[in-house]
Amino acid sequence: MNKDLILLGHGSGGRLSHQLLDEVIIPALSGVAPAEQNDAAVLDCEGGQLAYTTDSYVVDPIFFPGGNIGDLAVNGTVNDLAMMGATPLWLSVGLILEEGFSKRDLGEILASMRRAADLAGIRIVTGDTKVVPRGKADRIFINTSGIGRIDHVYPIHGANACPGDRIIVSGTVGDHGIAVMASREGLALETDIVSDCAPLSGLVAELLANVGSGVHVLRDPTRGGVATTLKEIASQSGVDILLQETALPVRQGVRGVCSILGLDPLYVANEGKMLVFVSSEAAEEALRVLRSHPLGEDAAIIGAVTAAGTGKISLETASGGIRGVEMLAGEQLPRIC
Amino acid sequence: MNKDLILLGHGSGGRLSHQLLDEVIIPALSGVAPAEQNDAAVLDCEGGQLAYTTDSYVVDPIFFPGGNIGDLAVNGTVNDLAMMGATPLWLSVGLILEEGFSKRDLGEILASMRRAADLAGIRIVTGDTKVVPRGKADRIFINTSGIGRIDHVYPIHGANACPGDRIIVSGTVGDHGIAVMASREGLALETDIVSDCAPLSGLVAELLANVGSGVHVLRDPTRGGVATTLKEIASQSGVDILLQETALPVRQGVRGVCSILGLDPLYVANEGKMLVFVSSEAAEEALRVLRSHPLGEDAAIIGAVTAAGTGKISLETASGGIRGVEMLAGEQLPRIC
Repeated sequence: MNKDLILLGHGSGGRLSHQLLDEVIIPALSGVAPAEQNDAAVLDCEGGQLAYTTDSYVVDPIFFPGGNIGDLAVNGTVNDLAMMGATPLWLSVGLILEEGFSKRDLGEILASMRRAADLAGIRIVTGDTKVVPRGKADRIFINTSGIGRIDHVYPIHGANACPGDRIIVSGTVGDHGIAVMASREGLALETDIVSDCAPLSGLVAELLANVGSGVHVLRDPTRGGVATTLKEIASQSGVDILLQETALPVRQGVRGVCSILGLDPLYVANEGKMLVFVSSEAAEEALRVLRSHPLGEDAAIIGAVTAAGTGKISLETASGGIRGVEMLAGEQLPRIC
Repeated sequence: MNKDLILLGHGSGGRLSHQLLDEVIIPALSGVAPAEQNDAAVLDCEGGQLAYTTDSYVVDPIFFPGGNIGDLAVNGTVNDLAMMGATPLWLSVGLILEEGFSKRDLGEILASMRRAADLAGIRIVTGDTKVVPRGKADRIFINTSGIGRIDHVYPIHGANACPGDRIIVSGTVGDHGIAVMASREGLALETDIVSDCAPLSGLVAELLANVGSGVHVLRDPTRGGVATTLKEIASQSGVDILLQETALPVRQGVRGVCSILGLDPLYVANEGKMLVFVSSEAAEEALRVLRSHPLGEDAAIIGAVTAAGTGKISLETASGGIRGVEMLAGEQLPRIC
């Protein structure tokens, strides 16, 4: 392992990704402090605040059960806006195509993007297309960026988790990662698992309308999964967290594939789920609101912020033991989004 | 040539690119009419108007005389904002890295991005990094999107060219394309040509402050060059154009390489130049303003809008003949930006 080279793990969303960000990318580009790193930037604009975010999508395969790279690229960016409590408004689309890519597949992917955008109420307003010679890219990569309007006044961000907060996950975990993984070439895994790829902006709007100031942190556990995302938040907020393993909603099929592949569902990517840190007083109401929305039916309280601390996460296992939870170390599932 | 597949020419910025856009991408994603297609979207926002744009950069080689993929990715997007007369405010950066890419090269590219952003007064506020396995991308691709504020009240867009308008180019043409081309592996062309990669927002601000409503269209002739860009504008505005070949500023070295490679400088990409359509009354003042700025020293009036029409472009050649100018047909210089 040559420490001067980019490794697959630098794209995993886990510890290596954070190292690259903290040591190379952020100091060079923006210098923004770790505590200020959220799913989207908040921009002061005449007349209010905007949220602004970007993501590139390189998922493999490009078509998978429950979606494709197109709706993933829309929902992923919509969700990053939603995690700031923003209403998604405008989307940009940057396509990088490999010479020889099928126009029919492109058409299908674009149609999915449009459907996903319409569903989320975001308008695709600008775009760009590049083509590279055969062998210089893998079929299609999509970048989207998005702008949303922040209408609420609550300080919802990763550094706002407070001792006593309950931690809710909005549904079953690991569905996206396992759906993509199981459909990879060469893996003959027969499952009925479909990606959870979905826009969370409606669910967030319901939550804010009903629970408002009780919501402290929102974040979608994509690359690196629930464990890595919680570790980020705990570290940004300077708090410790205790999770109940038995409370974590995991589909039977996901659990099965995870055990075959030796994966922990806590680290598997989701694309239609969010983690909500909510004050203890508001927790039951938040859970009720989430569960009454189609995208939050399986919401569950999975743990709590125990105290101010150094970002430690402990998991109470099914057998009653306690183990520490760390960030995803290297690359678990490359090109999952 | 299989008409169901993506070809390199679909990324050229020329006729094939427009076909793909008009037949596949725009109908699927946004349905915006050709006359409304500009370098950036204009968004109505409480308190004013924003410009919003995106571009992906896949230039090869990634380091070339006069710049690298990093400052190119900043300046290219800054310029798309500037072409709407917008003040650049915020930039997003999406990196797609190939496994095995050098961290040192990455650091150098990011440092260039930051310098370019600082120079243009745009702030890098959000970003994303993905890594794909070796052989699935070519070292580094960068997407940037940008947001700018439109402070002026002039209708500056591609459908606003008027009969009588003078057409100014802000400097010599073809420098970027030839600098990149000449530095490609395998081409042993010794030249002293450097890319013109630069942010045009300052130049545009000067122009608007002095000429204001006289400015009808601004567009930077990147992929497809001056010819293709003029063809786009002529078609969007429904006007015909006459160009003077002898008025076109072209460096001796660029002319030399073009003749060796059989290229026409009119079709070669620029990354620090713009075309300005300006009323005949304001033309001399616009030229004076441009020439008094370091990035506009070689500005020249290269032609005029002759009449309302069907988007025909004629070139009066050095020998006094007239020939028609069409859009770049296929792929001239792949991966030029």
